[in-house]
Amino acid sequence: MQKAVVLVSGGIDSTVLLFSLPRQDYALHALAFRYGQRHQRELECAQRQCDTAGVQNVKCVSMPFLGELLQEGSTLMETGGPVPDLDDIPQALRDQPPTYVPHRNMLFLSIAAAYAESIGAARVFYGAQAQDEYGYWDCTPVFLERINALLSLNRRRAVTVEAPLLRNSKADNVKLGLALGVDFSMTWSCYRGEMLACGRCPTCVERLNAFKQAGLPDPLPYQ
Amino acid sequence: MQKAVVLVSGGIDSTVLLFSLPRQDYALHALAFRYGQRHQRELECAQRQCDTAGVQNVKCVSMPFLGELLQEGSTLMETGGPVPDLDDIPQALRDQPPTYVPHRNMLFLSIAAAYAESIGAARVFYGAQAQDEYGYWDCTPVFLERINALLSLNRRRAVTVEAPLLRNSKADNVKLGLALGVDFSMTWSCYRGEMLACGRCPTCVERLNAFKQAGLPDPLPYQ
Repeated sequence: MQKAVVLVSGGIDSTVLLFSLPRQDYALHALAFRYGQRHQRELECAQRQCDTAGVQNVKCVSMPFLGELLQEGSTLMETGGPVPDLDDIPQALRDQPPTYVPHRNMLFLSIAAAYAESIGAARVFYGAQAQDEYGYWDCTPVFLERINALLSLNRRRAVTVEAPLLRNSKADNVKLGLALGVDFSMTWSCYRGEMLACGRCPTCVERLNAFKQAGLPDPLPYQ
Repeated sequence: MQKAVVLVSGGIDSTVLLFSLPRQDYALHALAFRYGQRHQRELECAQRQCDTAGVQNVKCVSMPFLGELLQEGSTLMETGGPVPDLDDIPQALRDQPPTYVPHRNMLFLSIAAAYAESIGAARVFYGAQAQDEYGYWDCTPVFLERINALLSLNRRRAVTVEAPLLRNSKADNVKLGLALGVDFSMTWSCYRGEMLACGRCPTCVERLNAFKQAGLPDPLPYQ
């Protein structure tokens, strides 16, 4: 069985990805990241989902330096300004909104690729999906293509990044997750990370719409 | 004056790079990395060179997680095996030798690009030179080209990586550094990081050859 690395964030997409990977083919090594985000709730969900999926190798990479480096930061980070409601983000900013974290996925995937190379895994899976493309250049098919062009230069053990859900909408992922038996009550999306999900930040709105489109109730309680 | 980020390691190449950048054009922000290397001596040199160059913005990024992730590691890291003498590295391994750190430059440059984007700098400079190409895929012209192809996807503030010394040999850098008044006694190359440079590890051999080719004495004492 070949080793593979999978990025987990505790959200819908990476959780569905985790459960969709054929377990008979891969010995999975999960990586989560503490990059200065406002709350740890999503990381608790990531750990729980890995436990449920029977993934024993789970590492959480702590990057306290990122909050200091990204002074202007991102509203997703403790060092950034408040998270805006989706409705309050002007259209002109939505191609790279205030919730964008500079180079986050490139950084995560660089670390994941280094880890993969070190343990002898040929693949890194991450949960990019089609809907995030609107605002995040690091969730697009061309990003995937170019990061793989870069990684392919490795002379010994080239690692490939794969995003099997890249053409899915979030609603597609909800439906797929349901078919796979994913417990969505143990996923977290809200950027604000309060006791209850806010229902108004960009990712809450997207999550609620995805469940609506999939014709399913979201098991999370909202404010 | 525009901001720019420059990677510094305390070695010959990045020090010459630091002094070669036109100070009338750039407000420099230097980044060094504590990535689990065997010793801090090179970082002390990096700091001293920044002081001499009048660069006030110097940050050192600590990545203690890397040693844990890279279990097989690299002989450059505390977690890796002993540093080999150059003569003991078989030819067949020299295109990616035991001193290679998986994805190190991609990781450093991802962080540097994130930092640059955050502070509004359009350029990241790093000290890759032609001689390292033999063993390190992340010091090649095609690496530079492809990482820039990736970074260019940024929709707001694309950052460009530049390696002005990419076509230089290490001897060229020694000569250039001499012309720029670089104090090479305050640079460090030896991978072993003992009290005196060993003179036998790959980077010591390259350094000694570079000074020899440049017709200059290396001011560092050796064992």
